[in-house]
Amino acid sequence: MKILVINCGSSSLKYQLMDMDGERVLAKGLVERIGLDGSLLTHRINESKIEIKKDIPNHKVAVQLVIDTLLHPEHGALNNLSEIAAVGHRVVHGGEKFARSVVIDEEVMAALRECSELAPLHNPANIIGIEACQALLPGVPQVAVFDTAFHQTMPKQAYIYGLPYEFYEKYGIRRYGFHGTSHKYVARRAARLLGRPLTELKLVTCHLGNGSSITAVKGGVSVDTSLGFGTISGTIMGTRCGDIDPAVIPFLMEKENLTPGEMNDILYKKSGLLGLSGVSSDARDIEAAAAAGNERAQLALEVLAYLTRKYIGAYAAAMGGLDAIVFTAGIGENSDIIRRLVCDGLEFLGAELDEEKNRVRGKEADVSTSASKVRILVIPTNEELMIAQETAELLS
Amino acid sequence: MKILVINCGSSSLKYQLMDMDGERVLAKGLVERIGLDGSLLTHRINESKIEIKKDIPNHKVAVQLVIDTLLHPEHGALNNLSEIAAVGHRVVHGGEKFARSVVIDEEVMAALRECSELAPLHNPANIIGIEACQALLPGVPQVAVFDTAFHQTMPKQAYIYGLPYEFYEKYGIRRYGFHGTSHKYVARRAARLLGRPLTELKLVTCHLGNGSSITAVKGGVSVDTSLGFGTISGTIMGTRCGDIDPAVIPFLMEKENLTPGEMNDILYKKSGLLGLSGVSSDARDIEAAAAAGNERAQLALEVLAYLTRKYIGAYAAAMGGLDAIVFTAGIGENSDIIRRLVCDGLEFLGAELDEEKNRVRGKEADVSTSASKVRILVIPTNEELMIAQETAELLS
Repeated sequence: MKILVINCGSSSLKYQLMDMDGERVLAKGLVERIGLDGSLLTHRINESKIEIKKDIPNHKVAVQLVIDTLLHPEHGALNNLSEIAAVGHRVVHGGEKFARSVVIDEEVMAALRECSELAPLHNPANIIGIEACQALLPGVPQVAVFDTAFHQTMPKQAYIYGLPYEFYEKYGIRRYGFHGTSHKYVARRAARLLGRPLTELKLVTCHLGNGSSITAVKGGVSVDTSLGFGTISGTIMGTRCGDIDPAVIPFLMEKENLTPGEMNDILYKKSGLLGLSGVSSDARDIEAAAAAGNERAQLALEVLAYLTRKYIGAYAAAMGGLDAIVFTAGIGENSDIIRRLVCDGLEFLGAELDEEKNRVRGKEADVSTSASKVRILVIPTNEELMIAQETAELLS
Repeated sequence: MKILVINCGSSSLKYQLMDMDGERVLAKGLVERIGLDGSLLTHRINESKIEIKKDIPNHKVAVQLVIDTLLHPEHGALNNLSEIAAVGHRVVHGGEKFARSVVIDEEVMAALRECSELAPLHNPANIIGIEACQALLPGVPQVAVFDTAFHQTMPKQAYIYGLPYEFYEKYGIRRYGFHGTSHKYVARRAARLLGRPLTELKLVTCHLGNGSSITAVKGGVSVDTSLGFGTISGTIMGTRCGDIDPAVIPFLMEKENLTPGEMNDILYKKSGLLGLSGVSSDARDIEAAAAAGNERAQLALEVLAYLTRKYIGAYAAAMGGLDAIVFTAGIGENSDIIRRLVCDGLEFLGAELDEEKNRVRGKEADVSTSASKVRILVIPTNEELMIAQETAELLS
C-alpha cells in the first residue's frame, strides 16, 4: 500500500510517497515559494535530485506538479495515480475536537476551519493543501493527522491556565501542545528499544529543534507538554522565547509602545537562541561561537539546556517516576553538547550519560552508562512515517 | 537590644518591636487606611489589643502615632525612644544593586528610588516609611532588608529570560524573585531542625500564601525561584495567574481590546485561585467549596498543588538532588490538603508524607514518614524576626 504524506505551509509543500510494505520512502520532495517569484520543486528519488523551476501560483498547481512528477516516466515513482491508497495530511491544530487522526469529510473540514483561529498561520495552509488534493485525487481517502491530537490526553490540571475560567470557555485558552506526531513516534520507538511495553513506561521526550517541546509520556499517553496555547512556551527555541514571566509582556508593551502584533513578533521571531546570543537562531552556529569564547552564545546554550533539565525533573514529578529520557529532532539528535548540558546533574534521578556513547549523531542509540537506571536515548524522529502509519491504520 | 521592624505599604504600616535578647516580640501592630477615611491603628502588647481611630493623613503621622503608642505609659513597650537601637525596614525591590541588607544612607536612598520603576506599587511606599522614620528618629540607624536580596545568588542561566538581550540591559528585565526574607528564614530553620549544616543541604522552600513562591536553596543560597520580574509567575496565587503561556497575552489583548494596564489587572487581580474557582481568592474558602463538590474549586486546588509539585521536581533537577521540602506561609503552614496534593507522587524522589503527622497546623514539624529519605517540613515563616536579625547583625 502506497501513501502520500503532505505537509503544507503557507508558501511551501513537503511531500513523501511511502510504500507501507517495508515502510520505505519511494520519493520525496519540497515545493517552495508557492505564489511567489522563484518558485521551485525539489524532488528526490533513490539517490538523485531533480529541480524544477516554474511558475507555481497556488497550492493546487503545486499538488498537480507533485503528481506529475510522481508519475514522470524517468524520475517518477508511480505508474498510475490509483496506486495512491490514501493521502495523510499534517494538520497543526485540532483544538479539543480531535484526539486522534481522522478520515476527512465535510464535517471534519468545517471543524478544521473552526480551529483556524487557534493556528491562524498554519491551519489555513493545511486546509488549502487538503482541498487541492481532494480536487486532484477525487475518491482517494484524505486523512488529517494533528500536531495537537496526541496531547489531548492531558489531565485538566495540566492543560488549564490560572486565568479567569471564562477565557477557557470563551476562546479555548488552554494548553494544547504541539509536535504530537513526533512525541508519539519516538515514544513508540523508545518502548521497542527498551524492550518493554509502552503502557508501563514513564518517558520524557525532548523534541529539541528550531521549534522545541518536551513531553511527559506516561503509559504511552501525553500527560503534560511544554508548548501550550501558542508555540512559544517551554524551553527556548531558535527565535522563540520559551518560558518567561507573563508580567514582562505588559511592561515591555508600555515601555516600547508595542501593539500585540509587534509584541508577538518579538516573542516568536526575535527571542530564544537568537535574542540571547545575538549570533544566530541555529544551535550549530551558537555552539561554534561559544567554543570561540562568545559568552552570550554560551549563555544561550546553558539556558536551553537548563530549562530542558528542569522540565525533565518537573515531568518526573508529574508522572511519579522516570524510566527514560528521549532526545529527538535537529538539536536532540545531533548535539552531544546540549545532551551533556541537559543531563549534567540528573544523576540523582538515576540518569547517567555515557560521554563516549553520547558522541552519536542522528542515529538511534542508548547513550546512558550501563549502570544508569534511567535510560537516555537518542531517537531520530520521523513524523512523515508516523503520519503514513496513522493513515494506513485508519484505512484498515 | 531593641529593634523596630517596619513594613510600609501604600496605605498601611505594620510594625513590630523586638527585643533581640531572647528574640521576643515586645509589641506589634498595624496602621490601616493611611490617607483615607477611617484610618486606624491596632496595637498588640502581651495579650491585649488596643484600637486607636484617628485621622492619619500620611506615613509620617502614622510613624509618629506608632512611636507615641510604643511610649505610652499604659500600653507602651518603651520608656525612652533611645531604647530603639535600630529600625529594620522591609523593602520589596533591591534590583541588582542589593544582594544583602544595608544600613541606609543617602546613596542607598538614591538607589532605592532607582529601583522604584521595577516595583512601582511597593518601593515608593517603603521609601516614604524610611523617610518618616529618619525624620522622627534622627540618629537611629535605619536598615533596608530586601525581598529580592536573597535571590541575587541565582546563576545567570536561572535569572535570564529567553528574550532579546537588550531588554535585560535596557530595562533590567530578568528574574529577581521575592519573599527572599521568608525563604532565607525557613531555610535556616530547616537546617536547625535537620541538625545539619545549611551549606550541605539541598532544599526546596515552598512559600504558599496569598502570594506564593518556591525556591531552590542549595548550600544556603537561592539558585532559582518561581517569582520573576513581577510577582505573578510560578504556582497560582490568590488572584495571580502563575505560569501561563506568554502567547496568551497578546491574543487576549487583541480579542478583548485591552490596554497593558487592563491586562495586568486581569493577571494580578482576577486570576489564580479566584479566576479558576470563581469562588474566592482564599484557599480556605476553596477547600470548603471543593469539599462540598464544587468542581472548579477542586480544579483550583489541584492546579496549585500540581504546579508546586512540578517546581519541586524541576528544582531537584536544578540542584542535582533534594534533602528536604519546606512548606511555609498561610497555605503551606496550615493546609494539610494542599501539602498532601503536592507530595502525592513524589515518593520516587524519596519523599513520603506521613498522613498522621501532616495534620499539623502552624507549628514547626517534620511531616514525613520515618523512612522518608527526603524530609518534609512545616516551618512557620517569620519575616519580621529575620528582618530584626539582619538589622542586628549589621549593627554589630
